[in-house]
Amino acid sequence: MIGGGPGAFIGDVHRRAMRMDGLATLVAGSFSSDPDTSRAFAAELGVERAYGSFEEMAEAEAAREDGIDVVSIVTPNWLHTPAAMAFIERGISVVCDKPLATTLEDAEALVRAVHEHGVTFALTHNYTGYPLVKQARALVEAGELGEIRKVVAEYSQGWLATPVEREGSKQAAWRTDPKKAGAGALGDIGSHAENLAMYVTGLHLDRLCADVRTFVEGRAVDDDANILVRYEGGAGGVIHCSQIAAGRENDLSLRVSGTKGSLTWNQETPNELVFNPLEGQERVYRRGHADLSDAARHATRLPPGHPEAFNEAFANVYSNALRTIAARAAGEEPDPLDLDFPTVEDGARGVHFILTALESGEQEAWVDASYEPPSAGHGA
Amino acid sequence: MIGGGPGAFIGDVHRRAMRMDGLATLVAGSFSSDPDTSRAFAAELGVERAYGSFEEMAEAEAAREDGIDVVSIVTPNWLHTPAAMAFIERGISVVCDKPLATTLEDAEALVRAVHEHGVTFALTHNYTGYPLVKQARALVEAGELGEIRKVVAEYSQGWLATPVEREGSKQAAWRTDPKKAGAGALGDIGSHAENLAMYVTGLHLDRLCADVRTFVEGRAVDDDANILVRYEGGAGGVIHCSQIAAGRENDLSLRVSGTKGSLTWNQETPNELVFNPLEGQERVYRRGHADLSDAARHATRLPPGHPEAFNEAFANVYSNALRTIAARAAGEEPDPLDLDFPTVEDGARGVHFILTALESGEQEAWVDASYEPPSAGHGA
Amino acid sequence: MIGGGPGAFIGDVHRRAMRMDGLATLVAGSFSSDPDTSRAFAAELGVERAYGSFEEMAEAEAAREDGIDVVSIVTPNWLHTPAAMAFIERGISVVCDKPLATTLEDAEALVRAVHEHGVTFALTHNYTGYPLVKQARALVEAGELGEIRKVVAEYSQGWLATPVEREGSKQAAWRTDPKKAGAGALGDIGSHAENLAMYVTGLHLDRLCADVRTFVEGRAVDDDANILVRYEGGAGGVIHCSQIAAGRENDLSLRVSGTKGSLTWNQETPNELVFNPLEGQERVYRRGHADLSDAARHATRLPPGHPEAFNEAFANVYSNALRTIAARAAGEEPDPLDLDFPTVEDGARGVHFILTALESGEQEAWVDASYEPPSAGHGA
Amino acid sequence: MIGGGPGAFIGDVHRRAMRMDGLATLVAGSFSSDPDTSRAFAAELGVERAYGSFEEMAEAEAAREDGIDVVSIVTPNWLHTPAAMAFIERGISVVCDKPLATTLEDAEALVRAVHEHGVTFALTHNYTGYPLVKQARALVEAGELGEIRKVVAEYSQGWLATPVEREGSKQAAWRTDPKKAGAGALGDIGSHAENLAMYVTGLHLDRLCADVRTFVEGRAVDDDANILVRYEGGAGGVIHCSQIAAGRENDLSLRVSGTKGSLTWNQETPNELVFNPLEGQERVYRRGHADLSDAARHATRLPPGHPEAFNEAFANVYSNALRTIAARAAGEEPDPLDLDFPTVEDGARGVHFILTALESGEQEAWVDASYEPPSAGHGA
Repeated sequence: MIGGGPGAFIGDVHRRAMRMDGLATLVAGSFSSDPDTSRAFAAELGVERAYGSFEEMAEAEAAREDGIDVVSIVTPNWLHTPAAMAFIERGISVVCDKPLATTLEDAEALVRAVHEHGVTFALTHNYTGYPLVKQARALVEAGELGEIRKVVAEYSQGWLATPVEREGSKQAAWRTDPKKAGAGALGDIGSHAENLAMYVTGLHLDRLCADVRTFVEGRAVDDDANILVRYEGGAGGVIHCSQIAAGRENDLSLRVSGTKGSLTWNQETPNELVFNPLEGQERVYRRGHADLSDAARHATRLPPGHPEAFNEAFANVYSNALRTIAARAAGEEPDPLDLDFPTVEDGARGVHFILTALESGEQEAWVDASYEPPSAGHGA
Repeated sequence: MIGGGPGAFIGDVHRRAMRMDGLATLVAGSFSSDPDTSRAFAAELGVERAYGSFEEMAEAEAAREDGIDVVSIVTPNWLHTPAAMAFIERGISVVCDKPLATTLEDAEALVRAVHEHGVTFALTHNYTGYPLVKQARALVEAGELGEIRKVVAEYSQGWLATPVEREGSKQAAWRTDPKKAGAGALGDIGSHAENLAMYVTGLHLDRLCADVRTFVEGRAVDDDANILVRYEGGAGGVIHCSQIAAGRENDLSLRVSGTKGSLTWNQETPNELVFNPLEGQERVYRRGHADLSDAARHATRLPPGHPEAFNEAFANVYSNALRTIAARAAGEEPDPLDLDFPTVEDGARGVHFILTALESGEQEAWVDASYEPPSAGHGA
Repeated sequence: MIGGGPGAFIGDVHRRAMRMDGLATLVAGSFSSDPDTSRAFAAELGVERAYGSFEEMAEAEAAREDGIDVVSIVTPNWLHTPAAMAFIERGISVVCDKPLATTLEDAEALVRAVHEHGVTFALTHNYTGYPLVKQARALVEAGELGEIRKVVAEYSQGWLATPVEREGSKQAAWRTDPKKAGAGALGDIGSHAENLAMYVTGLHLDRLCADVRTFVEGRAVDDDANILVRYEGGAGGVIHCSQIAAGRENDLSLRVSGTKGSLTWNQETPNELVFNPLEGQERVYRRGHADLSDAARHATRLPPGHPEAFNEAFANVYSNALRTIAARAAGEEPDPLDLDFPTVEDGARGVHFILTALESGEQEAWVDASYEPPSAGHGA
Repeated sequence: MIGGGPGAFIGDVHRRAMRMDGLATLVAGSFSSDPDTSRAFAAELGVERAYGSFEEMAEAEAAREDGIDVVSIVTPNWLHTPAAMAFIERGISVVCDKPLATTLEDAEALVRAVHEHGVTFALTHNYTGYPLVKQARALVEAGELGEIRKVVAEYSQGWLATPVEREGSKQAAWRTDPKKAGAGALGDIGSHAENLAMYVTGLHLDRLCADVRTFVEGRAVDDDANILVRYEGGAGGVIHCSQIAAGRENDLSLRVSGTKGSLTWNQETPNELVFNPLEGQERVYRRGHADLSDAARHATRLPPGHPEAFNEAFANVYSNALRTIAARAAGEEPDPLDLDFPTVEDGARGVHFILTALESGEQEAWVDASYEPPSAGHGA
């Protein structure tokens, strides 16, 4: 693991996720930019091999016979690219937090490096790990919604409603520092909303018009954004996100309407997916049922009514990636169900979305949002 | 009553609303553009005085000593102005369905006529009649949300997801005829969403950027619209509406965030209002409680847990207007609580919003949305 | 109307219900045991013919050519029998509040009188008037639940959690006076829960074991009861009610499980009915849809998503009864859909349930709860 | 680990729970009554030391210097006592699935053995591990509900609505075998409901009257039970459970009313706890907030809006027990917050409840349900 030192919320999340199914053991890490802190934290975690920097770790692990098979990168955004690159170039697979990078150049460099070195790269757009998000995608793929017409993706939080970055919150400090985070709400959560919509609908953006705002005085990044979107093929919709919606927790929701029905899913009540057909009664898909899609069932551990939640969804990204990495290491074809995790190409699309939205906000106009990453490939 | 003949959904709604509290009796009407149909329907309803046209009715009723005190206008939109004008000019008060008019010229003519003739005019933006919408407004007024930063108003329906206007639906036929309706989804439901947001927040629009769509082939009006909005004072947000969200029923919701908290209300579960403060636990305001605002309690008939719904909210517009009309007729000052109904000025603002959104959609650009009706006045 | 004078919550409810569909006009009443109060209140309501007592009114109205067709009885429980009897014996139909009577003797006398005099008698077990309660019944009748195994009916309120009857609440005063009310929570709300279960499942009680409690010191009637029930045919379950569940509003819910699935309905969210089949996904029946049962559609006025609630359900009892009375007066066969209202026999069953539960509570033992009223007949 | 072999749902749950916080490593096990199966499964799990029986394992591990510190017992119920006893007598701490035993004699022998040998014993009444259940308990302890008057605990499942035990379900086979399970629904889930009510309210049973049923033909244990309960001090209520509520998933809920308010919690939506005060607005406590009780915050890993669920609640029992065991092994006083896990005495109370309910059901009468285990002690 790179990053995720003391007090880093997301470091704990990643460690819990890799442990969930007993598929990985954390044996090495560079947990902090300060080598002493890194070593002390490694000792606390019971991690054997502590390193002072990611460069040092990449080099040393690549040289060991029993070196790591995969690295988790959970640093602030601006370090994703150099850290990931250090491992990719040595043939070590990567699980990386989102957004992939702070510039499109970096993102595309990563895409090319992944292809060149043949490693596996998974991006933790963790919300696509929820079983009922996978069911939503399956409903769309099966044509249950008909032709998609409208998408509304919302991600509202309130934890940045006040200038907590100036009141001691480390989390808030780097996430509102344009150098470390790239963007604010757009990068931190808007990219999740966009990725969720893409994952479920399979649609790629064509154009967008964004209203990007900073409400908290003195903040150097956006903390709220509302975006009109048009998808290739003609569907439209809205993506909106906020980190200043005071009192709101982690309210990510997706609504998709097609010619034959509409679906609604909300991350805070993730064990149900509502489908309203054009005619007839509402159906509520509930996690764990035998009649869900293969991908949804592959992503569930407990029977119906025994709720699963955020940690399990996050673990689904990890476990699929870890099984894929293990299969490839063994020279086997990965199980297609295991290839269901966000890729480096998804990450490049996300970076393009963030930068395009920022640009539209500045111009106060509709802009082209179509994009194709250097080359495609799923789970590679 | 003018309009609301056989099969007209909204005619029944208005008749039920005026009857709810026993404050009015329907004694005269011109229910259809066809005089015979009008008379037959009047007989069916047990209404004594049937007329062949609104002109005939206005003239006759104004001449009677026991003529009507107030007229309900529930025709297709394009007739609102001439019908209302016929009565206003004769000093008869009006309850009129929304949107007020199909042109801003007509809307402003009505505003001026109402003032000139000193009649009472109520517009049935019925969703503001819900007690917990009034409580939401009271929370904002009391500063519980702090300074408003973001507004998201959604109104999604699915009944026009297919070309029902060409399959025998009278409702759909006139509502999708640009000559009779003026606009489509924007006028029919988008104007409700905008009015609801204005009622609760007290904010007026400053600018907007709309994506106005027609998804059903051959339809001559919009059936879906997504609008970025900026309010005077700097708050932002999104208003979006759809009549092609297949399977969705009548999903009008409002979310407002301020510096101190956020509120959420949904028309399909109208007996609760959720408030999330910046810190501390969620509060759910439930209808009927003694600690609600005066306006909310004035608008409720039943104790907590005995749900009230659409008909009662609609009746609240009527009953407040009818009590105001009665007080004025008696030469008394109306109870301030009774003045809580949408006015002709609100209607002019709504028409301006609709037309501005259509314009922005055509230009694919942000446009000025600020507006001040000919003269202000509440409940007058 | 008999009873329902100033401040009587239920009097307003009945007047609103009879007015909802424009099927009745209130022309005469004895609204209070005090003749002056009765007359003053009649004047306030605009009711022409005020009487000093129900005897006086029954006699006078029966003698008039334009006398009333039907009387509403909304007095405290102990007066239901004499008041109803005065009108039944003169051939005047009755809509009566529940419970039917305070003794089984009275209840059975009413059943016999209704049959003897051929009048129509409707009991306002208003919760069976909800469209989705009718849909629940239709699902059971259609065999969607299979053979019924378990019924859980709950009715929880909190308004009597403190001794409000000694703090000026007129409502509470008579409802906790054993002479006027007969029983406490069991009669006031437990009888609704039992009736709702019977209406939906079609099952009659066989045995029961009740724990009947009085929690508020000094109160002379029960304010909480939990009852194990066995139905004829072997189904079992629980009926529990409380008026001391502090903070709870009007929480009446019904859960029924059969061999093929389970349904859940809650009065506080009455526009949806949840059905969980043995296998496959949850279905949520929503009011207003075209595929609901005839009885459910007959009981609805508004399209989906335009919520209806307590007043409309109450009105459904009235309107069905009023149309039945009108048909019979015209010598016509009533529409079978109009015969869907609670009868005097249902009332006798309810009285038997209340008294049996009280008896079981005193004995602290299972008791026989089977009962057949003097003679059957639906809507007669 | 003892038990939890291939296909055992609960074995996976326990393994995931012990792994959640990285506090334990599974190093030894006897996973099946068949030694070969046990060894093969150990290999599959990557567990080093596989044993053919629990006796063999207890002896061998006690003899090793690096022997296990704690054993998880996840066998069918009838083996809990002998398996646990083998380890307790050798001074090894135990985490055991519920119910504790199939006879009161066994249960009390375990209580005495735990005290005699000074080991730590945790029973996985996992539902008390939910943060908001702990918050509910804190509200009661803080007097927010006033004096408790009524408790309604429900646990409804549908997975045994058909005779799946005769259709190949291993789970169902032993759970419906009276020799292996002791009781049916009462033991499997009724005991959870009773334990949950006790944990939150702190109340112990005084008397009860149960209706215990077997609906599926040929089944040798109960599959449904409804129980009237009275608690010491006078509170009353209902505990009901069912495994034949076709279509219901894992619907465990608790409602508690006191003189000052009521609370409601449901296991299928575990991240919220509703509190309705006698007067004033509903409060919804949501997991992760800073103003929750110490015990609730100690039991949470993620910020608000990032839902936690079944696995985390289960892990809370483990982690508290594991930290207590570690502290005691280190000769330190355990953190009082870590002592918050169900004890062997809770288990004895649960066994007494199950057996008393069965007895009441047979007698069809109220029976004494008061009980005090051999000696008290928290977390010991």
